[in-house]
Amino acid sequence: MADPKITKMEVIEFEYFVENMEGSGRIQLPGYAPGTKIRNTARMVVIHTDAGVTGEYVGGSATEHSAIGLFANAVIGESAFARERIYNDAKQATRQHARMGMSQVDMALWDLAGKLLDQPIYRLLGEHRKSFPAYASTYIGDNYPGGLNSPEAYADFAEECYDMGYKAFKIHPWQEAPIEQHVRLVEVVGERVGDKMDLMLDPFCAILTFGDALKIGRACEAYNYYWWEDVFKDGGESAFAHRKLRELIRVPLLQLEHVRGLEKHVDFIVADGTDFVRIDHDYDGGITGVMKIAHASEGFGLDVEPHGPGPSRRQTMAAMRNSNYYELGLVHPKLQPSYPPVYLDGYSDMLDAIDENGHIHVTDLPGMGVTHDWDFINKHTVGKTVYD
Amino acid sequence: MADPKITKMEVIEFEYFVENMEGSGRIQLPGYAPGTKIRNTARMVVIHTDAGVTGEYVGGSATEHSAIGLFANAVIGESAFARERIYNDAKQATRQHARMGMSQVDMALWDLAGKLLDQPIYRLLGEHRKSFPAYASTYIGDNYPGGLNSPEAYADFAEECYDMGYKAFKIHPWQEAPIEQHVRLVEVVGERVGDKMDLMLDPFCAILTFGDALKIGRACEAYNYYWWEDVFKDGGESAFAHRKLRELIRVPLLQLEHVRGLEKHVDFIVADGTDFVRIDHDYDGGITGVMKIAHASEGFGLDVEPHGPGPSRRQTMAAMRNSNYYELGLVHPKLQPSYPPVYLDGYSDMLDAIDENGHIHVTDLPGMGVTHDWDFINKHTVGKTVYD
Repeated sequence: MADPKITKMEVIEFEYFVENMEGSGRIQLPGYAPGTKIRNTARMVVIHTDAGVTGEYVGGSATEHSAIGLFANAVIGESAFARERIYNDAKQATRQHARMGMSQVDMALWDLAGKLLDQPIYRLLGEHRKSFPAYASTYIGDNYPGGLNSPEAYADFAEECYDMGYKAFKIHPWQEAPIEQHVRLVEVVGERVGDKMDLMLDPFCAILTFGDALKIGRACEAYNYYWWEDVFKDGGESAFAHRKLRELIRVPLLQLEHVRGLEKHVDFIVADGTDFVRIDHDYDGGITGVMKIAHASEGFGLDVEPHGPGPSRRQTMAAMRNSNYYELGLVHPKLQPSYPPVYLDGYSDMLDAIDENGHIHVTDLPGMGVTHDWDFINKHTVGKTVYD
Repeated sequence: MADPKITKMEVIEFEYFVENMEGSGRIQLPGYAPGTKIRNTARMVVIHTDAGVTGEYVGGSATEHSAIGLFANAVIGESAFARERIYNDAKQATRQHARMGMSQVDMALWDLAGKLLDQPIYRLLGEHRKSFPAYASTYIGDNYPGGLNSPEAYADFAEECYDMGYKAFKIHPWQEAPIEQHVRLVEVVGERVGDKMDLMLDPFCAILTFGDALKIGRACEAYNYYWWEDVFKDGGESAFAHRKLRELIRVPLLQLEHVRGLEKHVDFIVADGTDFVRIDHDYDGGITGVMKIAHASEGFGLDVEPHGPGPSRRQTMAAMRNSNYYELGLVHPKLQPSYPPVYLDGYSDMLDAIDENGHIHVTDLPGMGVTHDWDFINKHTVGKTVYD
């Protein structure tokens, strides 16, 4: 095969609406609110080649996509397989922009490679398995009847998930609640399902102080939580502070969602700042970036745990030994995950997407393993940028 | 004074053109190219209050500004003085977006505070000095006659700067050149002016490997360079690699331009990854963020060196002991700095902005110390976003 050349790259922005959800509090985090509706936008990267095959990826924030123009020149005209060269160029081009945008382009390139070779990505990476367990990962807490409005409501929902087949459950608590309520939430859920589910806690950095973080940590310790994560307002970024948390609380920490890219992941590990290694395909340099982190972590003897669900997470978990759980979310007694409705052929990250063992399966379609609903995307397009 | 309330925030995008400059190479870094013209865009944040006073800040990339909507709700309706509360909210709201946008809003808030109190920012921070030395910081190398097209051309330009009063000179070399040419550049400039100027080298992460970085480092060592910076393609992010460079090469390293925010700066220092501490007001959380880093660095006994020129850099250097040089740039035998032409009242960051001692002075106008040219901005506005 001669090198297929990249001829054009497009970023398509489209909108979709989610019912019974709105932003609340000072920073407007989205959560359950009956009778409301929220407008979301999503973005797709499409890479065209002179071979007539295109690579596609749906994902990434507006902030990510705003930086793609910085390195588009290094993509256009390149070989469709030149991922490593493009990764290095994009890394330098976005060095003052936190490596924004390179992840989404990398994943469209992986989809492209799979389609050119008519193989799913996990086969190109090297298959380890075709399924893996998922945890049910909740929306943030709310104050509505029938919602996640009390520790007991979380515990009820955890049992519901257990009955569906989930063996693990992650709590995103409230954005604004007294520390005593946070502690009680950890205790009540731990008491109810702690003996039969792996429990995780992720306060998404809502806790104001290190001191309050310790109070929550002691509750996690008492109920033997599987991990706790991004607890307090340092933003999940201080390796120094998290080493101290690890010394004081014997619950495994999962950090690094908010620390972007391979080199800083390794520095954080070396600084003893985490036990589990968070990877995010949309923040860490795409599949190229997360596989580098997975391999570096394997060298440290550590596990990597992907942030959020999606086709890219499935393809890579299928090619990794050192990873435990697929994050199925966000979920809630009254809300389904709010990803854009663009996947055909039965692909689902809804609450009931697991099999009877609580597992998620990778598909055998080529590339990212999904077919996009172009009718929906075309009908809801609100913006387009073309690089050629 | 009752709390003045923030009523509205605007982001205004405007364009301006720079002659004899264009992007070149795979990632299109801008440099000298006679007869060409490049279109730049810039952005201003304007914060309105019910006191009738507004805070303004010009700066930040499109990527930064794309994230402001994530925390705008925590700004609108707040006290104009609530910088610390807004800093913490914005940090959490942008935790998955590398803290983008919070710097620009913070600096408009500082301008606002200064104007409300009719004082320049450095007085609110606490004055240390009213002037400080600058280094002439070059554009990247080019291949045009009269440009920075050879080691000798850099050396000639360094002498020209010395004759103007500059006591320090920083080389941005070529994006694509053989390693031997990089080494010769360090040697030729060192030979010519090394005995009378402090010399710095910043290859903006263009060098492909650690091995090539060492070759350049040995040349810097031989000519006693003041610092070297962001040498190779790790992107300036690996504390581990830079500790190794520090062990192998006894030239002070300046790192952290590409590592954003207080906590990760401190982690990098603790990991022995740098000697001088780079701060950037547009990446590190604004004046609030860089002052936190300056104080943390002071606690480590280290100096902080601001990235790039501008009013915010002047206000903060005036309030710091532990900082050596103002970065005047980028400069070139045929090109002036390319910041947007929006400052009235004689404010200048052009090559001749220094006094006879090579110093830059802070002004005594209130807030950021500059008056913006609204005629120019209004005439060149290409986009506007309003948060209210």
